[in-house]
Amino acid sequence: MATAKQNKKRSRKAGLPPGTLVHIGEKKLESPRITVIDYDEQNFQEKEISTIEECFPFKQSPTVTWINIDGIHDISIIEKLGGHFDLHPLILEDILNTGQRPKCEDYDNHIYTVLKMLSYDDKSETIRAEQVSLVLGANFVISFQESVGDVFEQIRDRLRNDKGRVRKMASDYLTYALIDAVVDGYFIILEKLGEKIESMEEQLVAEPTSKTLQRIHSVKRELISLRKSVWPLRELINGLAKTGSSLIKESTRVYLRDVYDHTIQVIDTVETFRDMVSGMLDIYLSSISNRMNAVMKVLTIIATIFIPLTFVAGVYGMNFKYMPELGWRWGYAAVLLVMAVVAVIMLIYFKTKKWL
Amino acid sequence: MATAKQNKKRSRKAGLPPGTLVHIGEKKLESPRITVIDYDEQNFQEKEISTIEECFPFKQSPTVTWINIDGIHDISIIEKLGGHFDLHPLILEDILNTGQRPKCEDYDNHIYTVLKMLSYDDKSETIRAEQVSLVLGANFVISFQESVGDVFEQIRDRLRNDKGRVRKMASDYLTYALIDAVVDGYFIILEKLGEKIESMEEQLVAEPTSKTLQRIHSVKRELISLRKSVWPLRELINGLAKTGSSLIKESTRVYLRDVYDHTIQVIDTVETFRDMVSGMLDIYLSSISNRMNAVMKVLTIIATIFIPLTFVAGVYGMNFKYMPELGWRWGYAAVLLVMAVVAVIMLIYFKTKKWL
Amino acid sequence: MATAKQNKKRSRKAGLPPGTLVHIGEKKLESPRITVIDYDEQNFQEKEISTIEECFPFKQSPTVTWINIDGIHDISIIEKLGGHFDLHPLILEDILNTGQRPKCEDYDNHIYTVLKMLSYDDKSETIRAEQVSLVLGANFVISFQESVGDVFEQIRDRLRNDKGRVRKMASDYLTYALIDAVVDGYFIILEKLGEKIESMEEQLVAEPTSKTLQRIHSVKRELISLRKSVWPLRELINGLAKTGSSLIKESTRVYLRDVYDHTIQVIDTVETFRDMVSGMLDIYLSSISNRMNAVMKVLTIIATIFIPLTFVAGVYGMNFKYMPELGWRWGYAAVLLVMAVVAVIMLIYFKTKKWL
Amino acid sequence: MATAKQNKKRSRKAGLPPGTLVHIGEKKLESPRITVIDYDEQNFQEKEISTIEECFPFKQSPTVTWINIDGIHDISIIEKLGGHFDLHPLILEDILNTGQRPKCEDYDNHIYTVLKMLSYDDKSETIRAEQVSLVLGANFVISFQESVGDVFEQIRDRLRNDKGRVRKMASDYLTYALIDAVVDGYFIILEKLGEKIESMEEQLVAEPTSKTLQRIHSVKRELISLRKSVWPLRELINGLAKTGSSLIKESTRVYLRDVYDHTIQVIDTVETFRDMVSGMLDIYLSSISNRMNAVMKVLTIIATIFIPLTFVAGVYGMNFKYMPELGWRWGYAAVLLVMAVVAVIMLIYFKTKKWL
Amino acid sequence: MATAKQNKKRSRKAGLPPGTLVHIGEKKLESPRITVIDYDEQNFQEKEISTIEECFPFKQSPTVTWINIDGIHDISIIEKLGGHFDLHPLILEDILNTGQRPKCEDYDNHIYTVLKMLSYDDKSETIRAEQVSLVLGANFVISFQESVGDVFEQIRDRLRNDKGRVRKMASDYLTYALIDAVVDGYFIILEKLGEKIESMEEQLVAEPTSKTLQRIHSVKRELISLRKSVWPLRELINGLAKTGSSLIKESTRVYLRDVYDHTIQVIDTVETFRDMVSGMLDIYLSSISNRMNAVMKVLTIIATIFIPLTFVAGVYGMNFKYMPELGWRWGYAAVLLVMAVVAVIMLIYFKTKKWL
Repeated sequence: MATAKQNKKRSRKAGLPPGTLVHIGEKKLESPRITVIDYDEQNFQEKEISTIEECFPFKQSPTVTWINIDGIHDISIIEKLGGHFDLHPLILEDILNTGQRPKCEDYDNHIYTVLKMLSYDDKSETIRAEQVSLVLGANFVISFQESVGDVFEQIRDRLRNDKGRVRKMASDYLTYALIDAVVDGYFIILEKLGEKIESMEEQLVAEPTSKTLQRIHSVKRELISLRKSVWPLRELINGLAKTGSSLIKESTRVYLRDVYDHTIQVIDTVETFRDMVSGMLDIYLSSISNRMNAVMKVLTIIATIFIPLTFVAGVYGMNFKYMPELGWRWGYAAVLLVMAVVAVIMLIYFKTKKWL
Repeated sequence: MATAKQNKKRSRKAGLPPGTLVHIGEKKLESPRITVIDYDEQNFQEKEISTIEECFPFKQSPTVTWINIDGIHDISIIEKLGGHFDLHPLILEDILNTGQRPKCEDYDNHIYTVLKMLSYDDKSETIRAEQVSLVLGANFVISFQESVGDVFEQIRDRLRNDKGRVRKMASDYLTYALIDAVVDGYFIILEKLGEKIESMEEQLVAEPTSKTLQRIHSVKRELISLRKSVWPLRELINGLAKTGSSLIKESTRVYLRDVYDHTIQVIDTVETFRDMVSGMLDIYLSSISNRMNAVMKVLTIIATIFIPLTFVAGVYGMNFKYMPELGWRWGYAAVLLVMAVVAVIMLIYFKTKKWL
Repeated sequence: MATAKQNKKRSRKAGLPPGTLVHIGEKKLESPRITVIDYDEQNFQEKEISTIEECFPFKQSPTVTWINIDGIHDISIIEKLGGHFDLHPLILEDILNTGQRPKCEDYDNHIYTVLKMLSYDDKSETIRAEQVSLVLGANFVISFQESVGDVFEQIRDRLRNDKGRVRKMASDYLTYALIDAVVDGYFIILEKLGEKIESMEEQLVAEPTSKTLQRIHSVKRELISLRKSVWPLRELINGLAKTGSSLIKESTRVYLRDVYDHTIQVIDTVETFRDMVSGMLDIYLSSISNRMNAVMKVLTIIATIFIPLTFVAGVYGMNFKYMPELGWRWGYAAVLLVMAVVAVIMLIYFKTKKWL
Repeated sequence: MATAKQNKKRSRKAGLPPGTLVHIGEKKLESPRITVIDYDEQNFQEKEISTIEECFPFKQSPTVTWINIDGIHDISIIEKLGGHFDLHPLILEDILNTGQRPKCEDYDNHIYTVLKMLSYDDKSETIRAEQVSLVLGANFVISFQESVGDVFEQIRDRLRNDKGRVRKMASDYLTYALIDAVVDGYFIILEKLGEKIESMEEQLVAEPTSKTLQRIHSVKRELISLRKSVWPLRELINGLAKTGSSLIKESTRVYLRDVYDHTIQVIDTVETFRDMVSGMLDIYLSSISNRMNAVMKVLTIIATIFIPLTFVAGVYGMNFKYMPELGWRWGYAAVLLVMAVVAVIMLIYFKTKKWL
Repeated sequence: MATAKQNKKRSRKAGLPPGTLVHIGEKKLESPRITVIDYDEQNFQEKEISTIEECFPFKQSPTVTWINIDGIHDISIIEKLGGHFDLHPLILEDILNTGQRPKCEDYDNHIYTVLKMLSYDDKSETIRAEQVSLVLGANFVISFQESVGDVFEQIRDRLRNDKGRVRKMASDYLTYALIDAVVDGYFIILEKLGEKIESMEEQLVAEPTSKTLQRIHSVKRELISLRKSVWPLRELINGLAKTGSSLIKESTRVYLRDVYDHTIQVIDTVETFRDMVSGMLDIYLSSISNRMNAVMKVLTIIATIFIPLTFVAGVYGMNFKYMPELGWRWGYAAVLLVMAVVAVIMLIYFKTKKWL
């Protein structure tokens, strides 16, 4: 349960002064990987650097610079970067704390955005979440990820090959593009969950077992955690679109509105999935009690037919001396006949009661 | 499950630059059908065109032009149209993505509206949804549908025969009329669902089976998906009525208020249906447990009467040498009498317990 | 189910131009009945007219005129009236459509109000709803009802006998008085429902049957439909009280606030009733399972006592040649004793388990 | 059920003109008791008067006058008072109607407040509600209660002995003090309910019976009705604190904020209690089904052990001529042994299944 | 149950004038402990004082003074302090009443904040709550706690050793730091609860007992009470951040925003935990009914196999004279064979029904 773990780490910070840099989260990477992409409409440059100081010169350049850092456990790197780019201590603290709620904060000369990048692990059939922090400055974007591997590869392609609008636009558009890529990634998760739900529905109809119940509950829990990542996004993007900051240009706002719509769509689908899953729980429970019913019926039919008959047999198994029936020539046959009649009457009764 | 499928397609877009035109949805039609209706109070012209370029001249004409496109999988047509009518790339993207949430966007010189046209398929007893996009310009309306066949036939009639107000009004009134026709279509769906619910209620009272449960859940799911189409409509129409855009004239707003009322009515009815359906689920479940109760009672009555009697018979079936009762002249009769008395006492007991 | 029926009729309108007059609802009356009451502080005149034209002269008179029309299926009358009194086509459309949601619309020179008048049919034990439309003009009020018979008789009395304030006030006060009478009528419905709930509660405690469940659900459904009539009223009256229209005088607003309070009280009571009814459902379900429990206990006690005893009897009913016990002098007595002891031990066990 | 009764009375008013004085409620007192307390910082005067006219002179006096009327069924008194103190007819109507929802109304020269005074009847273990109306004027407060006996005794003491701030302050502070006393009374109710809930919890753990269920539901119903009294109070006090009326002085507002906090605390506790009670319902239901489970297990164990054994005994009780086992020397012993082995195996099986 | 106890004490105050100082709560300490920390950027002084008067001189000093009082049952101390520091009587009343809802009140020259400090008692596995009141003045902060021991030790360390920003900032920053420490403490609680939930989940899967249910409900109740402490915090911190008071400096607001985010995170986690716990309740209930199902199946299988066989045995145990089968040579063998066949057929039937 990721939530419990996150809190466990979080408490290490309790009581420390705000702005104290403590990495809260799992160390997912040996040493951080830093890549720099610098571009404008004409030029494009991409390189992987080994020391953080190599990217400092880009701060002054008029071109847009995207510094991406994979791995945030090396506090010294974050500190140096923060010092050079003049980031507020609270930004640095938030970057390191991987249990952040998605949010967007406007610090005069920077806009800090933190959100969850989700990916689906096909092997373990679980959703993996990674925290992505974006710092938008006048002509740079710095992105922080917990580990190597992200959903931004297509954006890098578009930058490299000057596809779409991105090379022509400023750093705010790049920020939008990164957020959009993250949100687009949610659709892939929804797709997987949709398939899961579909297959569970078929299973429910065909043959519900207690394993089905466990699957229902695991999907339910995934939806709870997905919801926690997605709901704050609405506010985040809204905040970004409505900020008074000059860092977000008017022309970018229409794109933010678009990604806002996508977010609403994701939320809608999550809520629909929740409705469906809780409907499935109802079906499961009533199919269980239907089954119980069927079992009870069989028991009742067998018992109510044979118990009286056994009683009759018991009566004629008694050893009384004076039991006239026992001496009759057709006594045995008569008793068998009576039994048969009783059984038939009972079967008819059950038939009328629709138990058969 | 339409939702899962939609998401599956949606993920094809993940990572592409915004404004990239990718058709997301099923290809419901071989080649798109384009019809143009051009009118003002005096003139009326209607024709089906084969190439999209034929409708370009209408852009300049002072008359109102309604271009309707059935089938949106041919991206080149959408692109050319977008280019000529100067539509924002995000509009074009949204038109092609059939998983849109109903919404209304104001792009300075256009208002883009997307909503779901629902129809009821009597054969499969399911609701079919089709996405309708409306682009309102100064003197034109462009509508995009996924396939041939819509709820707009009566509007075409009114245009042809100059019935009602529509020929006297501008393009905003036509947009209203189209939205109104879509909302009116919802009432037909509600009617069908209402009938279904009514028949299910009768079934519930008469003879609830596990099939009833499945029907309840299928209606529940239809209501969930209907709700998803209808709720955003409120905001959509409200947005349209309150937009500052000069494209919506003052005189049209009162009509938008009217269709807004209809939408609220649809939402109200959907919510009432939801309440009713979940009430039916309760009835179903308690009727199941009532049944179980009845079964249990029969079992208990039979068992509790005959088990003691069988025991008595068993006792006198024992082979002990010294069992004085066995030699009595009236022993057998006495035992039978005792058994009868026990049975009668038990029946009276059950009677007082109201189990009979 | 009224809702389904309403929708059925409503769909007849789908696609017609707005303002097209189609009567949607049941035809509850043969021919409409029109009554006119004209009054000011000094004068009072009341008459039943046979053609709608007879009421036209009152439009100009400075006195307050109340035109009441029972029966709205005769479209021509509504049309003529609308023409003379200059009513907006959408008002006329709404009057004829009996599936309206309660609302209040401000059309410059008229205020249109539509609400549900409820009455309780003691015979069928159901709530009957009738749509009442009120058009408030400068010096007239026109009210439309579906059939003869209403809750306004006391207002007519007050007008005839100059009781209370009503003859001294303008048409807005009359409108208020009519709305107030409708809302007062809701208290009678609540009273009936309250009695029903009370009697159901007694039944629940005394002897819950599956019929009780059906009654609970019927009350639940009545509350759902009552709620649908009452909730929009809040907004309606609020809208009326806060409208900028000069038709509503300042002095009337305090009375609207009063009827607003009554509406809130009705809503509160409806919500409380809903809470109580759903509480009763819980009680019903748990009383059912309590019963099941009791049945199971009896079965278990009887079975667990006699099954082992019957086994013992069975053992000594076996026909083995060498069964020494069978020859013992006190064998039979000993076996009976053992059986009695076993039975007593079991009874004590059940006693400690509190099953007896 | 108080609610039903209230509505029954309420309907007597249906159709009467607003402001018509009809007493709605139970007549709790033979003849009204009127007491007058007149005070300022120096002077204090307290007397019981027999005719309402005796208190009229106080209207002009600059001192603060508190007129308290116990018993509101004598309409003439209310009318005379209303006439002299110039109270709006709607205030008088509301005072007489004991089914009011707590509210606060600002009539230019008066502020009318109505709320519920609750007391706990230890004998019947129920909450008794009494309506208290407060009319705040420039230098007087008139309070109306349904019967003698209230929570204001300590305020009278403070007035008599000049304790606290109350003698130094104006009539608005007295109004605050009265409201505060009513709200403080709620804490006593909450305490009683808290004790009830605590004792129910112990009962639930120790030995849940169907009586426990009834107690849970009675507390639930008390919480529903408490909630109905408390929720509107928030709005009431807020309205009082934010009114623009000069009757409420700035210095009193901070005290209103304080009583507002108390109200929120009461609401919070009521909601927490509701949560707890519904949690108890869950525990009750699952303890019932746990019990059922236990009963079923015993039945199953007994039955599954003895039914096969009885069958074996039955086989050797058959009277076939050629049953070789019957003649064996150790046949009987062998069968007994086999039976014992079967029984032991079954017991072990149940052990592994954790049924024992 | 803490809530009930709190209310019990609270009612002691009913009817007393506002501002009357009565200690409501448990007396957790023998005699109050008072510590004073006085600091600015250069100086630091910390001492424990024995009489409250010793701290009075600090009021005038320009340095920031933090007076911490552990133990609030000694009313005279609170009164003297209130007198000297000019605190509003309502502040003093609230400090003494330990049942306060977290809130923040702005009294011109002071800001009063009250919140709950939570700690986890590992022995009893319960959450302990202690009320902390903070009074922020121009250059002092007074904090009141119920007992010795708090979460502020690290802040004292930071003050002593001049770590972080706190010595450089004014009293408002100290207030923030104290609130932040309290909120950080919540994460520790969440961590403990998260562990509990995790271990319960494992238990649920492995072997659910009625003790698991009790644990689920105890966690549920802890979440209810945690929620009650946390929800109002949002409003509190928001109020603090948005107050117009000059006591909160602009530079501190960004830190308040940060602690606000933490609060939201706590609330989110509490809500997620609630969702998870109620999901676990569902799992528990369905695992119970699964078990019942399994029990029923075994009973049914055993009973339905052996009851018919026992009947057959009973038939041939009858003592009729003329039962030809009894004399047959292979009669016994044939009957045994028939019985075996019946048993096998039944087993196959159960197999196809998936009951085995």
